[in-house]
This record gives sequence, structure tokens and C-alpha cells, in this order.
Amino acid sequence: MRLSRYFLPILRETPKEAEIVSHRLMLRAGMIRQESAGIYAWLPLGLRVLNKINAIIREEQTRAGAIECLMPTIQPADLWRESGRYDAYGKEMLRIADRHDREMLYGPTNEEMITEIFRAYVRSYKDLPLNLFHIQWKFRDEVRPRFGVMRSREFLMKDAYSFDLTAEAGRHSYNKMFVAYLRTFARLGLTAIPMAAESGPIGGNSHEFIILASTGESEVFCHRDFLSFAPPPASVDFDDAAGLQGIVDKWTSRYAATSEMHDAAAFAAVPEDARVAARGIEVGHIFYFGTKYSEPMRAVVNGPDGKEVVVQMGSYGIGPSRLAAAIIEAGHDDNGVIWPESVAPFHVGVADLKVGDPATGKVCADLVEQLENAGLDVLHDDRDERPGAKFATLDLIGLPWQVLVGPKGLAEGRVEVKQRRTGERELLAPQDAVTRIVAATRQAQA
Amino acid sequence: MRLSRYFLPILRETPKEAEIVSHRLMLRAGMIRQESAGIYAWLPLGLRVLNKINAIIREEQTRAGAIECLMPTIQPADLWRESGRYDAYGKEMLRIADRHDREMLYGPTNEEMITEIFRAYVRSYKDLPLNLFHIQWKFRDEVRPRFGVMRSREFLMKDAYSFDLTAEAGRHSYNKMFVAYLRTFARLGLTAIPMAAESGPIGGNSHEFIILASTGESEVFCHRDFLSFAPPPASVDFDDAAGLQGIVDKWTSRYAATSEMHDAAAFAAVPEDARVAARGIEVGHIFYFGTKYSEPMRAVVNGPDGKEVVVQMGSYGIGPSRLAAAIIEAGHDDNGVIWPESVAPFHVGVADLKVGDPATGKVCADLVEQLENAGLDVLHDDRDERPGAKFATLDLIGLPWQVLVGPKGLAEGRVEVKQRRTGERELLAPQDAVTRIVAATRQAQA
Repeated sequence: MRLSRYFLPILRETPKEAEIVSHRLMLRAGMIRQESAGIYAWLPLGLRVLNKINAIIREEQTRAGAIECLMPTIQPADLWRESGRYDAYGKEMLRIADRHDREMLYGPTNEEMITEIFRAYVRSYKDLPLNLFHIQWKFRDEVRPRFGVMRSREFLMKDAYSFDLTAEAGRHSYNKMFVAYLRTFARLGLTAIPMAAESGPIGGNSHEFIILASTGESEVFCHRDFLSFAPPPASVDFDDAAGLQGIVDKWTSRYAATSEMHDAAAFAAVPEDARVAARGIEVGHIFYFGTKYSEPMRAVVNGPDGKEVVVQMGSYGIGPSRLAAAIIEAGHDDNGVIWPESVAPFHVGVADLKVGDPATGKVCADLVEQLENAGLDVLHDDRDERPGAKFATLDLIGLPWQVLVGPKGLAEGRVEVKQRRTGERELLAPQDAVTRIVAATRQAQA
Repeated sequence: MRLSRYFLPILRETPKEAEIVSHRLMLRAGMIRQESAGIYAWLPLGLRVLNKINAIIREEQTRAGAIECLMPTIQPADLWRESGRYDAYGKEMLRIADRHDREMLYGPTNEEMITEIFRAYVRSYKDLPLNLFHIQWKFRDEVRPRFGVMRSREFLMKDAYSFDLTAEAGRHSYNKMFVAYLRTFARLGLTAIPMAAESGPIGGNSHEFIILASTGESEVFCHRDFLSFAPPPASVDFDDAAGLQGIVDKWTSRYAATSEMHDAAAFAAVPEDARVAARGIEVGHIFYFGTKYSEPMRAVVNGPDGKEVVVQMGSYGIGPSRLAAAIIEAGHDDNGVIWPESVAPFHVGVADLKVGDPATGKVCADLVEQLENAGLDVLHDDRDERPGAKFATLDLIGLPWQVLVGPKGLAEGRVEVKQRRTGERELLAPQDAVTRIVAATRQAQA
């Protein structure tokens, strides 16, 4: 992508309204723009990140056997009356009357709708287990939205819903998502810790996945071992119920709790040097709630003996829009964002330090072509700007690699390669720069 | 994808509420489910088609130089007061009050919001031309939604917005989208005819792109030549203003009009055997409206002489959700849908006609693996169902190719390959079936 033809509205000044670093950096790097309180437009650079997060979530959901669908944003109120949540949900639900004065709402979550879809079509235990997910915009009318897309009103959510014949099968479905989430967060470059949690308006048992960050909204307490647990490999067999249970057991074997669930005595039993008390950001939440919705909404199947069985359900949420901010909270420095390769909007920035010079222009064009042919996403800074502005922009937007092409270096056949995370710089022949960056990017994504 | 693990809720009976064939077939094939009047959930098979349509639209928008962003669904009413459209839009606009009684709305289109984004960041003529697009859910509160996703209330729209310094440059931007649309519809397997149109609440000059279908909502009149015009090639140079104008001139050189714009005298001048009077479905609409929004909303840039210039704008819409239905209207028979390769939910269905037989099972597994390794999307019907049900399902969901694997054929080393569009059947060795289908699919998508 040629930057001269792109839309990357960098802000020079730090926006005053932004209280946390991810919000400041997303505004400054031209990733998002607030359109009203807690409602954001995703500018091109931000959307690239959001789409890469979505792609990883989708891959891991699919690997775990979940099937993608897409439910609408607007729901009929009557559906929520069936579960009893229409009145219970309170003012966070955005209630709407259409032109015929029918009561509608902007979905904050989809347990009721997916249960309606399930009961409309599924008749037999033979069609179970079933897990359907979608990635769709939701709306929760927070009293005081803040922290940018970290706590917005209109937000993107991946929500999956499992249906099973028995509680035991339901546990297997829950564990599939537990393991899928561990893999998802690891691929996003995050260390997420599962913590037993209260389940709020969804109901049932649940785990929150929390990443540690000084700007986190809540206090959390956990065992240090979590910080070094290896995530489950891609080869994990999701049909192996015992194997999955082993992984879940390992990841729930140490103390970990949000402040709501904190047990000071149990935490005191953790060896002192292993105790971590920190602030955390919730990046995922999974629920097992049995028949909470299937019972009142009559989601039943015929069991092996021909008798009706009310199905066991769970739901599993991740917020991709919030994750974009959480990843920045976990990866930045004074100069800007530091993206992990897996979600970087571009893998490499190639900066022409003397636009108009045929030599730098030619080398840049060749570099871009070769890097793109190797499958990398490349931002080509071909703007007529001074080098200092280009360095600052590339640091701010946090691409993993920078290639700086100036006449001085080229006189010696060299370009400068800078790794954003370490700040390490090397002078390399253009061909070697390509080889180095392609190899490192592939390794990071393996 | 193994069908036994997929969610494909086929309906045996024809739903009574569906008035047109695409609506009937989308319900029967388990592509969509109505959640309230004019509001649909996209079931897994339908979502695959929708995503493939989106991908083609996105590629052609990008090829033409448009840049993707993503605006929110909920907009503040004040933005629409700036353009004067808040009161003008009428009851089709879904108006919403949030918990603080602020006036909001569910966006039916985004001219105001994109103009707000533009004026917030763009200062100089040097940043032009600029074309930003997004693919996002919209809501128009139709009095009488019907025809399934063909005229729904919540619908997906790709809308692009161009910004230029001069009317001449604005014309070039308009022509880029005109040509991108011709390519997009051709890749979707549709013959779309551009027709001069009234521009309604958006304002300005415009063209509608219409496909001919007996179930079309409006009467249209055109010259038969349109049915044989070749679409612009992938190699078209979007920077070549004169070249693009030539393409647009060709595609507007013959008579073509919707009933609102119909000129009976001009149509009578078309040679009688070249006159086509038919019904049509609008699948895209492009507008050039100059300063209609930029003037009241003060979207200005500094021109080359340092003076402020109000920018020239256009907007360009395609409805992917409606297109899914339109493609079915244009491609079906009594047995079901006939998808073009480009948007087929799967390219091939492989049906095991004797589930449990190790021989058919092994051949099916090998076929699926080889076809998938070649990059094709494969649906593997491994359900324990009678062959007749499998044939009917595959015909109904309209995959371009079927491979039927039964013990009788295998005894002679053969599987049956059926092309959905032609009905043509061949008995081939499994390896030859793979070669044949991969080659044909690649050719169709080239």
C-alpha cells in the first residue's frame, strides 16, 4: 500500500479526552474516531488490525468445531420476554420502537435468538453437539462509556453458543472453547489467565480470561506460574474429551481470581514469591448455564430413548474491538504501538527517505514488490515528507519492521532495517533485508 | 466440511410466506431465517455466500483505489441535522433515544458521517482524490418489508464515498466506481445494465445497475446490445481518466432506463428487434452530488492557491445481502439454486452413498482431501441418509459440482461426477474426477 494514496490521519497532539494509553495511541495513530459517546468509526489502519484479530478468532473457533453464522443486530423484544430478561436487563439494553411501534432492541448478546434458531430446526440428539458462533456488532448503553474501544457502547463481539444432550457433553463443549480461547489469546500475543468468575446477567458458571495490565479495570490475584504456562498446540484433538479436561485442569490448578471472587485466605496459602496481585483487563468470558434458556424457551430434542430432553447450553464471548485496545495496553512504548506480527496492520514499513530520487525510489519499489510477493503486508511511505516525520510515524503505528532507504546508505549498497520491538538496527543489502524480514515474520507467525 | 458436523437445516416444505423464488430457495436451503419482519439471521450456508460476495466487492473496490474503513451502525441525530436530512428522511429512518435521551438513529446510509470524518482530518488538496468505503449493516424501516433479503429492513451495504477538488476529478472518481461495478457484477455471474436514474434522498446525478429478472420490482427498458457487452478486464488502468471515460461512454451509449426515467419516444427509436422491455432488480446505485453535503457541512480543503475549496463528492452503494437473492433469481431451476463458481458456498459436494462402507468412505475421504488441497471448498455428505435425500440436498443448495460415490460404481473403479448447471453426468476414476473439477473451477474463476 502506498501511503500517499492511503488514509492515515496521524494526530500530532495527544488528545486530552483519552485517559489510557491504548485510547491515546489509537487516536494518534489514526486507527479510530469517536462519532458519539462510546461509538467509534474504525479508520483504515484500525480496521486492518480488527480484521486480523477476527481472522484468528475465526480460525480457532473453527478448529474447535464451532460453525459460523451471522445473526442480526436488531432483535424483537418478545424473544427476551420468553427468557425473562427483557425487564431484567435494565438500561444497558438499547430499546427501540419501530415505525409500527413494535418493541425492538439492539442486541447486547444473543442467547435468546440462538435458542430460537436451535429450537426451530433441531429435533434429534443425533444433531448434537452443536456450537454456532457469529462475529457481530452489539450495543450496551453504558452510563459512562470511556477508555475508547476498551469500554464502548457499540462494540464487536464474537459469541458462540453450544448445545448438548447431557451435562457431561456440555462440559466437553465448554472445555473446547476454554482451550480455543487459550490458543486465540496466545496467537494474539497475549498472556491470558482464566479466572473463575461471577456470571452476571447471563447466568451459570463461568471463567473470565484476564490479561495483566496496569490500566486494567479490575484488581486480580493469581499464581505466578500462569505467566509461564505454554498454550495448547495447534495439534490439540478437540474430540478427545479427557485430553481437553487435562488442559483445563492444568489451567485451573493454580489460584486465580478477580476481586469479586477473591478468597484472601486461599491467596495467602500461595507461596509469597508466587503471589501476583495486579490489575487486569477482561478479554474473554465463557459460561456454562445448562438449561437456563433452553428450559423456558423449550429448546428440546428427542433423546436416544425417544423422550424429550431439554438441551444443555453454554455461551462464549470475546470482544475483538476491545482486544485491539488490550493488545496495545500490553505492547507499546513512549514512541507508540508495538504490534505482534499476528495482528500488525502491515508487517513492514518501507520508507523512501528522499522521494523523487530515482535510486531510492527504485530500491523501495523493488523491496515492496519482493516483500509483497512473499505474502507480507507492506506500507510504502512514498510521501514527500522529511525523514524525521517518517521515523515518528512508523514508530507510532508500530509495524514490526521498518526499512529505511536513503541516498547515503544506498551509496554503499545498504538499507537500514529496524526491528520495532527491540529497536535493533542493521545495515543490510536490500536483498538481505528481504530475506531477514520474511524469515523473521514467518517464524513469528508459525 | 463434514455435513454430519455442519448446520444445514434444509426445509422439506416450501414456506408459504415466500412470494419469490430466491426467498423460497434461501429458506428451503437453510441459508437464512427470519427473526422479525424484514430482519434475518444468516445461517452458515448463507453466510458463506455473503462472505464470498463481500470478498469480490472488496477486491474490486480496492483495485479501483478505494480504501476500506468501518463506520458504526448507530449515528447521532445532530449529524443529520447539519445536512438537513434528519427531518427530511421520514419514517424509513429508525430513530432511537439512548438512556440519556440523546437522539440517535440506525444509519440508513453514511454521507453525513463520512463527511464529518473527512472534514476532521483532511486539510489539503494534496490528499485528494480520496475514496473511502465500508461494508456495514444498515437499517431502513420499510413499511412493508418482503421478498426475504431482497427488501429487508436490516441489510448489508457496501457504500463508498469519493472526495475531489474539482468536478472533473469528481467525474473521474465516479467513473472508477462505474467500471468497478461492471467488473463486480460480472464476477458475480450477473449481467448488470447501468441506467440513468433519479437520485431520491441522496441527491444529484446517478446510475442504477439493474439485472433483468422476471421477479424484478420495477419495469425497465433497454437496448439488447447490453446483454452481450464484455465487462472491463482486470487489467483496466484506473488512473487513466480518458480510458475509463471511454468504457463509461460505451456502457451509456445505448438506451436504458427504469420506468421512472423512461422516454417512450427515445425507446421507440431503438430498432424493434433490439428493444428489451423487462422487469429488473436494482443491485447497485452510484451518485455524483457535488457539494450537496460538503457545502452545508463545511468539508473544505486548501487548494493549490491557498484558497478554501468545497470538495466534490459522490457515493456508491451495493447491497451484498440483496445480491445473494438477486444471484438466485438469475440462477435456479425447479430443483434449487445454481450458484456461479465465484460465490458458491462450496465448490463441490462429495456424497458418500453408503455411509459405513469402508470402500466408499475411503474414496470420499481421499477426494475431499485432494480437492481441498487444491484450494476448493468441499462439502462432504457423510450423513447416514438414503441416496435420494442426498441428491435432492445437493441439487437444492446448488453447488457447481457433485461427486457421487457408491459401491456399484466403485466396483468398476468409477465415481459419478455431475455438473449442477448443465445436469451433465460422467463416470470417472476418482483421480480424473479431481482433475476435471479442479480445472473447471479454476477456469471459471479466472
